[in-house]
Amino acid sequence: MLEKNYLMPGAALTMLLDHLRNRTLAVETVPLHDAFGRILAVDIIAQEDLPGFARSIVDGYAVRAVDTFGAREQMPAYLTLAPEILMGTTPSFVLGKGEAAPIPTGGMLPEGADAVVMIEDSQVVSNTIVEIMHAAAPAENVIQRDEDIRIGECVLEKGQRLRPQDVGALAGLGIPSVEVFRRPIVAIVSTGDEIVPLGEPLTMGKVRDINSFTLRGLIQQQGSVALWKGIIRDDFESIRAVVAEALAESDMVLIVGGTSAGVRDMSAAVINAFDGPGVLFHGVAVKPGKPLIGGIIGSRPILGLPGHPAAAAICFANFIRPALDMLSGEHEKRTFPRTVPARMAKAVASVAGREDHIRVRLDEGQSGLIAVPVLGKSGLITTLVRAHGTVAIAGPKLGLDAGEQVDVRLFEP
Amino acid sequence: MLEKNYLMPGAALTMLLDHLRNRTLAVETVPLHDAFGRILAVDIIAQEDLPGFARSIVDGYAVRAVDTFGAREQMPAYLTLAPEILMGTTPSFVLGKGEAAPIPTGGMLPEGADAVVMIEDSQVVSNTIVEIMHAAAPAENVIQRDEDIRIGECVLEKGQRLRPQDVGALAGLGIPSVEVFRRPIVAIVSTGDEIVPLGEPLTMGKVRDINSFTLRGLIQQQGSVALWKGIIRDDFESIRAVVAEALAESDMVLIVGGTSAGVRDMSAAVINAFDGPGVLFHGVAVKPGKPLIGGIIGSRPILGLPGHPAAAAICFANFIRPALDMLSGEHEKRTFPRTVPARMAKAVASVAGREDHIRVRLDEGQSGLIAVPVLGKSGLITTLVRAHGTVAIAGPKLGLDAGEQVDVRLFEP
Repeated sequence: MLEKNYLMPGAALTMLLDHLRNRTLAVETVPLHDAFGRILAVDIIAQEDLPGFARSIVDGYAVRAVDTFGAREQMPAYLTLAPEILMGTTPSFVLGKGEAAPIPTGGMLPEGADAVVMIEDSQVVSNTIVEIMHAAAPAENVIQRDEDIRIGECVLEKGQRLRPQDVGALAGLGIPSVEVFRRPIVAIVSTGDEIVPLGEPLTMGKVRDINSFTLRGLIQQQGSVALWKGIIRDDFESIRAVVAEALAESDMVLIVGGTSAGVRDMSAAVINAFDGPGVLFHGVAVKPGKPLIGGIIGSRPILGLPGHPAAAAICFANFIRPALDMLSGEHEKRTFPRTVPARMAKAVASVAGREDHIRVRLDEGQSGLIAVPVLGKSGLITTLVRAHGTVAIAGPKLGLDAGEQVDVRLFEP
Repeated sequence: MLEKNYLMPGAALTMLLDHLRNRTLAVETVPLHDAFGRILAVDIIAQEDLPGFARSIVDGYAVRAVDTFGAREQMPAYLTLAPEILMGTTPSFVLGKGEAAPIPTGGMLPEGADAVVMIEDSQVVSNTIVEIMHAAAPAENVIQRDEDIRIGECVLEKGQRLRPQDVGALAGLGIPSVEVFRRPIVAIVSTGDEIVPLGEPLTMGKVRDINSFTLRGLIQQQGSVALWKGIIRDDFESIRAVVAEALAESDMVLIVGGTSAGVRDMSAAVINAFDGPGVLFHGVAVKPGKPLIGGIIGSRPILGLPGHPAAAAICFANFIRPALDMLSGEHEKRTFPRTVPARMAKAVASVAGREDHIRVRLDEGQSGLIAVPVLGKSGLITTLVRAHGTVAIAGPKLGLDAGEQVDVRLFEP
């Protein structure tokens, strides 16, 4: 059956993101050693050249390249030894015509020198003379003063999530602290009369809270901060009060649970009890995750997630993660999804008009990876525990054939 | 030219890993909300069933399936209404023959019931009678008491790095804390007379410390703890003393810098000044990263990394990361490298007998991604900043052709 009343997932996500595009979080300054993983709030313009002087990249002799032209093993150039250049110091002399100065890797070229001959291509013949058996081109074995970074250059752009090497480049420029966006705070409001918090005794008919633990990890993995608001009874006024608190303390609110029809409607009603625009969509043509609710209160995104653990996690990957990436201030970069190619171990049926996310385990096959569907209801957390990732079946498709080539989207480690 | 005296990278890594295979770090207990990303030190055996009772996965009527056999829209079954089942409670009655009890999603099935009919397939016809228009199979719309996890089952194995869903499964079992391996501590010993720490004025001929910042991020990304031991002068005794300290405080030591031949030898001499086995290899047929030194002191790995920033980072990815994964106690699982397919924008030459790691930027082409080599010396940190990942050219290959299909190994975000 076609799920006629449900929005297609792409449309639902676009609707949500359109409301977040112009939001920016506050900026804070962090010392560079805490900057890894944070998102730049400003462009970084180099205030100096890197390395700042011409350096040798080999152990050898600093020379004027022109003095070595034509040199080869059978016909070396004979150069006069200039003083040795010590690591980390400025040479106190100018290299004259016909001279060669011993220089270590990383050493500073003296004025007058424009190339370095590797030690392997030289031979000292006396206290004053060295044979050069290789014609050095100008700039050979040299890093120029601005070859890594040039003063005035934009090294990193606003919106860049700082990778280890980006932090390294900032250190190279002597930047001790950077302005980054504050990490988004995501409030988790768990609901359900049947949910018992970890550590409390379980009575028959009740289940323990799984979702707030899974979601906390997913939020941390994205680089945001999770704020758990506890388990709230299925009562409109109680949920409304905690959501009001959560809105004041966070940048995004997740109401989790309420998988039964009556309670689902309650989450939507709670969202609409605040300032608009309120509920944007209620129900998405995706499996698992169909009951997903997306809304905006003022400028804050608020989502109603199904209580089934696998459904909640898959909704996170497909809707909340992209929304959180945008909210974090990360620029809309080209993204490279973490997928691996595999072949389906068996056929899986789907329904046209609905996007299915099949959980799969990856096994090693004779000619590549085999994706084995991990079957089971979306209420089973172990369907995620036993899986390495998911395979999406696009809306119009009627399923996957056995042996069909698919891209498996891996769970993050 | 063939790099005859250098070990091939695969052989070097194997040599290093062989010394780490039987090392285990101490075990510590962490509360479940801090367990995300940690590595289990024990198998987790379920002490209870999950969910622990038969639950409905829809809103509807709990029934004896046999009472609905043959029911269809044109010929419904008429069942007697039993008391409504409330969420989170144990039904106080046994469902009799011919009865149907209203049940919410997640509600507990009463004794006697073995299936649930969806509310959409029913119609209440009086205060006491409900029409059932669908024949329910036994177990239909029900999660059995041990369907997610069965008591005695091994849910997660020792060596598993806990993903968000794994933590969720532990929460579902009511496990409040877990035994995990202590995070490895990796000491960074920066060396070089030319290196100035961040925040100190730079004089001509000196450069700022880049590597300790890049390495700190790479270590954190892996899940370990970085311990920076400061910048040490190029002096055997000073380096030896700091390495001795670092060995006492950490699980792995990285001596960084010393790219010039004399100092390289000093790192190796320092390693050999301690208990054996000492230096395992000195120089690897890989570019960048050729001067890499691998050693073991007692049972601790110690590596000498080239000071060129791109070389140090690529050595980390290819040698230190796998060693650290093993040291962390992570089981030797099948790994799914984070790669994307692309075509080379232009030809790149390599040398047979050496494994080259070409940094590339990814551009969107007409038929997929284009890998554009980011050329530049391994001393330039921006060759990493401008790149999205690397392409490896295996030892025997002489290079890559323009348009050749490659797998780009993405940098982690």
